[in-house]
Amino acid sequence: MSSFTYDLLAEEGAARRGVILTPRGDIQTPAFMPVGTAGTVKALYTDQVKETGADIVLGNTYHLMLRPGAEEVAALGGLHSFMNWQGPILTDSGGFQVMSLSKLRKMSEEGVTFQSHIDGASYELSPERSIEIQCLLGADIQMVLDECTPFPATHDEASHSMKLSTRWAKRSKAAFLNQPHRKEGQALFGIVQGSVYEDLRKESAAALQDIGFDGYAVGGLAVGEGQEEMLRVLDFTAPLLPKDRPRYLMGVGTPDDLVEAVSRGVDMFDCVMPTRSGRHGQAFTRFGKVNLKNARHANDPRPLDEASSCPAARDYSRAYLHHLIKNGEILGMMLLSWSNIAYYQSLMADLRQAIEEGNLASFVARFKAEQAAGDIPAP
Amino acid sequence: MSSFTYDLLAEEGAARRGVILTPRGDIQTPAFMPVGTAGTVKALYTDQVKETGADIVLGNTYHLMLRPGAEEVAALGGLHSFMNWQGPILTDSGGFQVMSLSKLRKMSEEGVTFQSHIDGASYELSPERSIEIQCLLGADIQMVLDECTPFPATHDEASHSMKLSTRWAKRSKAAFLNQPHRKEGQALFGIVQGSVYEDLRKESAAALQDIGFDGYAVGGLAVGEGQEEMLRVLDFTAPLLPKDRPRYLMGVGTPDDLVEAVSRGVDMFDCVMPTRSGRHGQAFTRFGKVNLKNARHANDPRPLDEASSCPAARDYSRAYLHHLIKNGEILGMMLLSWSNIAYYQSLMADLRQAIEEGNLASFVARFKAEQAAGDIPAP
Repeated sequence: MSSFTYDLLAEEGAARRGVILTPRGDIQTPAFMPVGTAGTVKALYTDQVKETGADIVLGNTYHLMLRPGAEEVAALGGLHSFMNWQGPILTDSGGFQVMSLSKLRKMSEEGVTFQSHIDGASYELSPERSIEIQCLLGADIQMVLDECTPFPATHDEASHSMKLSTRWAKRSKAAFLNQPHRKEGQALFGIVQGSVYEDLRKESAAALQDIGFDGYAVGGLAVGEGQEEMLRVLDFTAPLLPKDRPRYLMGVGTPDDLVEAVSRGVDMFDCVMPTRSGRHGQAFTRFGKVNLKNARHANDPRPLDEASSCPAARDYSRAYLHHLIKNGEILGMMLLSWSNIAYYQSLMADLRQAIEEGNLASFVARFKAEQAAGDIPAP
Repeated sequence: MSSFTYDLLAEEGAARRGVILTPRGDIQTPAFMPVGTAGTVKALYTDQVKETGADIVLGNTYHLMLRPGAEEVAALGGLHSFMNWQGPILTDSGGFQVMSLSKLRKMSEEGVTFQSHIDGASYELSPERSIEIQCLLGADIQMVLDECTPFPATHDEASHSMKLSTRWAKRSKAAFLNQPHRKEGQALFGIVQGSVYEDLRKESAAALQDIGFDGYAVGGLAVGEGQEEMLRVLDFTAPLLPKDRPRYLMGVGTPDDLVEAVSRGVDMFDCVMPTRSGRHGQAFTRFGKVNLKNARHANDPRPLDEASSCPAARDYSRAYLHHLIKNGEILGMMLLSWSNIAYYQSLMADLRQAIEEGNLASFVARFKAEQAAGDIPAP
């Protein structure tokens, strides 16, 4: 098997249960992709990431092009070998981080020039260079360079921005087809833009499908518009996407965001939240968020979730986790990042099973009730 | 088996191969004890610590009495349960860190009062309170409170300090015998002081043996006197200790220190060096120290040591380790701490085997040659 295909296995309402077949392994969807920004899912061994049930991880083109550099990673055998992860990897285009992290950006029709946030060195990123970098890294799923339209944007601004992204998408596809480093079975995803405007999302989705991609992402969400508005946009955007291709909601989100977006037909997600929050003492559990910094955990002998299959959630007391976080111990960040990724993966597994069994509606109701009830009280 | 015993299995010159039997498991000696300062061997899971071959870890009374507190750990089931380590634990008395970390110390015959370096709160530590804390923690091997004589010290200063430590050792033993929290099979070690003066070391060792302890530590070394002087002191101090009890050289050291001290009859060691250096990008290997921060590793595809049984040393390129350390990634600290502890444990295993086989002299020669030859050159 050396091609990239998506099989839709089951549906419930708009929700989809599927599998993406890639030369590096299958991706069960709906899928959450842990973020391995600079070639590491922070504070986790790749073995652990795999054991939590993650089929695919994400790498950030922006970070990797600055350090150690795409050509350097290629010379070392590619990103999979570099970071010791043999499953599929998705890389973003670098565009989002150029906008959010770099200094002294200059946008043009050609692309963007910017200075590294690390050492001020100057770089260029064009649709063609982004694809070249992603192929050098060896990414199994690559993303077109786009402009992530800021929020809020007027209809005119959003239209202008979306049209630029569309022209870049076309150039990205051409560059992808011509890339000498590209391997059989690697895929390229387009990204629907258009901010909160239905007509623009429609125009973007249609134009991208004219170009033709292996999957379609929804971009420009989770950028400050709030959950309600995000879901409203998803309500009219998801149906614009072809049923026989995976759909990826970029940069999302909380467990509740995932449940809501899966219900609207999204197949793939990525977010730094479980690892970043974990490093800051915040746990995601069946019972909602638990802030381990809080002094109420100082003498609590109970684990985060005794029913969890993750040792981090099951085998350590809240008192110990509190102690580690309070003392800035690396093990605290390791355990909570692990526990959070495990919780996200178990949530996705539950969603997949619920859709297969036609039980999504009741699963969502139970999930909402458990999260609303909050953390289990001390005995 | 609920008692604490030491069996001497083999000797070569002054070097000893033995085993300490404790209710929580055997400790093969010579042994290196990873330091779990505040209830965690920094950046390692306890499973990993065990798998590297460590039979016992160390906990620091000073850190644990401040946070979370000895009574708090006891209420949570003791230190083993708290940190998820089921093997033996040795705790120090707290005295060394009071001297090196705390503020506003006041020493008296009774003990020491000090302010926490964390929040300035006031604490008292006496021989009796130190034992009480160590019993509350549930330590399998406990240390008497002593004054670690600073270096350099005049003969008068060292004598005065050693005599205070001897009086405290006597009180510690009485407190240990009377401790209601003490469990069968828990052991108490005395600590020989006397700085660099042979007559004082002799006086200290004799006085401690009069009191009677389950093991004997050599204190007041590795405090700035240099390796040559340390070994000179060991040369006349180790023979002062009973053959049927384990001997522990506190706070030592580099791999070369361990080899030299084992050759002089030391059985137990602890040191933060492998974990602390690991967090700062320094690896200990068969080929000597390797500083992963150095740019020469940036494109090196080779692992630290392809023959290592530790995945951290075997399965990741130096280029990747360099990248992680350069980017301040937690995984870099995790991998190098792991690799270093694994190297220390494999060195101890090699030393044990060499003594068993009567090959210590040739092992030491080979070790010195490998370390002197330095890191393997790039291919």
